[in-house]
Amino acid sequence: MIATQLRVIYGDTDQMGVVYYANYLRFFEAGRNEFLRAKGLTYREFEREAQLMLPVVEASVRYRAPARYDDLLTVETSLPEAGRASARFEYRIVRDGELIATGSTLHACTELGGGVRRFPPDLLERLRAGETPAEPART
Amino acid sequence: MIATQLRVIYGDTDQMGVVYYANYLRFFEAGRNEFLRAKGLTYREFEREAQLMLPVVEASVRYRAPARYDDLLTVETSLPEAGRASARFEYRIVRDGELIATGSTLHACTELGGGVRRFPPDLLERLRAGETPAEPART
Amino acid sequence: MIATQLRVIYGDTDQMGVVYYANYLRFFEAGRNEFLRAKGLTYREFEREAQLMLPVVEASVRYRAPARYDDLLTVETSLPEAGRASARFEYRIVRDGELIATGSTLHACTELGGGVRRFPPDLLERLRAGETPAEPART
Amino acid sequence: MIATQLRVIYGDTDQMGVVYYANYLRFFEAGRNEFLRAKGLTYREFEREAQLMLPVVEASVRYRAPARYDDLLTVETSLPEAGRASARFEYRIVRDGELIATGSTLHACTELGGGVRRFPPDLLERLRAGETPAEPART
Repeated sequence: MIATQLRVIYGDTDQMGVVYYANYLRFFEAGRNEFLRAKGLTYREFEREAQLMLPVVEASVRYRAPARYDDLLTVETSLPEAGRASARFEYRIVRDGELIATGSTLHACTELGGGVRRFPPDLLERLRAGETPAEPART
Repeated sequence: MIATQLRVIYGDTDQMGVVYYANYLRFFEAGRNEFLRAKGLTYREFEREAQLMLPVVEASVRYRAPARYDDLLTVETSLPEAGRASARFEYRIVRDGELIATGSTLHACTELGGGVRRFPPDLLERLRAGETPAEPART
Repeated sequence: MIATQLRVIYGDTDQMGVVYYANYLRFFEAGRNEFLRAKGLTYREFEREAQLMLPVVEASVRYRAPARYDDLLTVETSLPEAGRASARFEYRIVRDGELIATGSTLHACTELGGGVRRFPPDLLERLRAGETPAEPART
Repeated sequence: MIATQLRVIYGDTDQMGVVYYANYLRFFEAGRNEFLRAKGLTYREFEREAQLMLPVVEASVRYRAPARYDDLLTVETSLPEAGRASARFEYRIVRDGELIATGSTLHACTELGGGVRRFPPDLLERLRAGETPAEPART
């Protein structure tokens, strides 16, 4: 798990006085970027060197408590699943220990042209390093 | 189902050349607003007159094909579930008959102060008018 | 002058209950796109066919009255100056006859690689058609 | 002058591969918030305690070099003018010593209801502390 800090600006809020619901996906992206950087791999390098992309296939957010202007939020990003050609990131947004939102994004691994490709094994190794794999479903 | 048209601007795209993943939630909101307006009820009135809000509790998006700059998108918004104190909107974004994204948002019905409240029955009636209820799970 | 209509969504507002100041530049872009389309030329074609871009060099906004959620705004876009290798668009945002904001953007004409280029004369002709040129400074 | 660091995310860019022009105003806001915090005064306190707001009256940006995804930008915010009932912030965005953009925002000082008000003198004192006043025009 990698923690990233973010300060909420006016531009993130809406007239309800809370962070606009779409902006949590921006916060998730910031967390994802820092996750990759912490693994020694920026997403920019990923695109340029590996000639791969990680387009989002699914995203979901569960809103638990409102975040407000000037809040200092922590995005906790983890990678419970990284398979052959896809990866699932999970996110928890917290403020002073209070849970604000949770969510996940599912990404395909594709060539820049769009075709699905296997994750290069060494890359997968680096992404998984230190991460707790998702528990297999019990039978 | 209510259809809303949207034109994609540069500001909606990202450097992958496609609509940024968070912006689909903006498109869903536009669809939701027009859904309410089509039922004779703007969300502005909902807040002011009924002194109620519909904060988002959950949101999810499934990205099926990329939308691009200058695309004319149609957001098809429906309300398959509207219960005592919550409502689920569903969305399909299409471009020339091609499915771009699907998703849903779950909303609570609350007072402006935040406490959960029952939907006023006449309101519920109006929202549901013409909508196909979600099918009950078959047994 | 070309008029474009826009509906303000929640995502455009901030916690002051008004449209967030950066979003006027999004509205200007929407106006600019429709200006080009009305001249028979989408910006997408401009990039693809002419292999040219119009990157923004300067932008300014003057905020005169707040726009609010659900407002139906009209962006009036005009092109008072279109010279050899630059163009200045001007914008007026109005709501029911009330002036909400004014502004302008100055654009260079460049190759996709970035080098400044002259506007193709036939293109300039089309853009200027029907537009009132800016008055020269009196001496 | 107060320096604030920002990391560019995918959501800040557009399909030209650079930061979308409206987002510089978001970066300016982040710089402005940190300017106030550095002076011992968050904008949140400003609103709550002084019952004052600083709505933007004018904003302008000059784009000098494109910022790109994953860039680490520094927003340098200063307050060259703070008068009776208005304040002008200036911004320089730099990346590794290269100038990316400059701009300014002019703010009124108003009551929460909207009426223009004088800056409380002690507040003005704090904001100006350490700032270089704008030079008067030479004659």
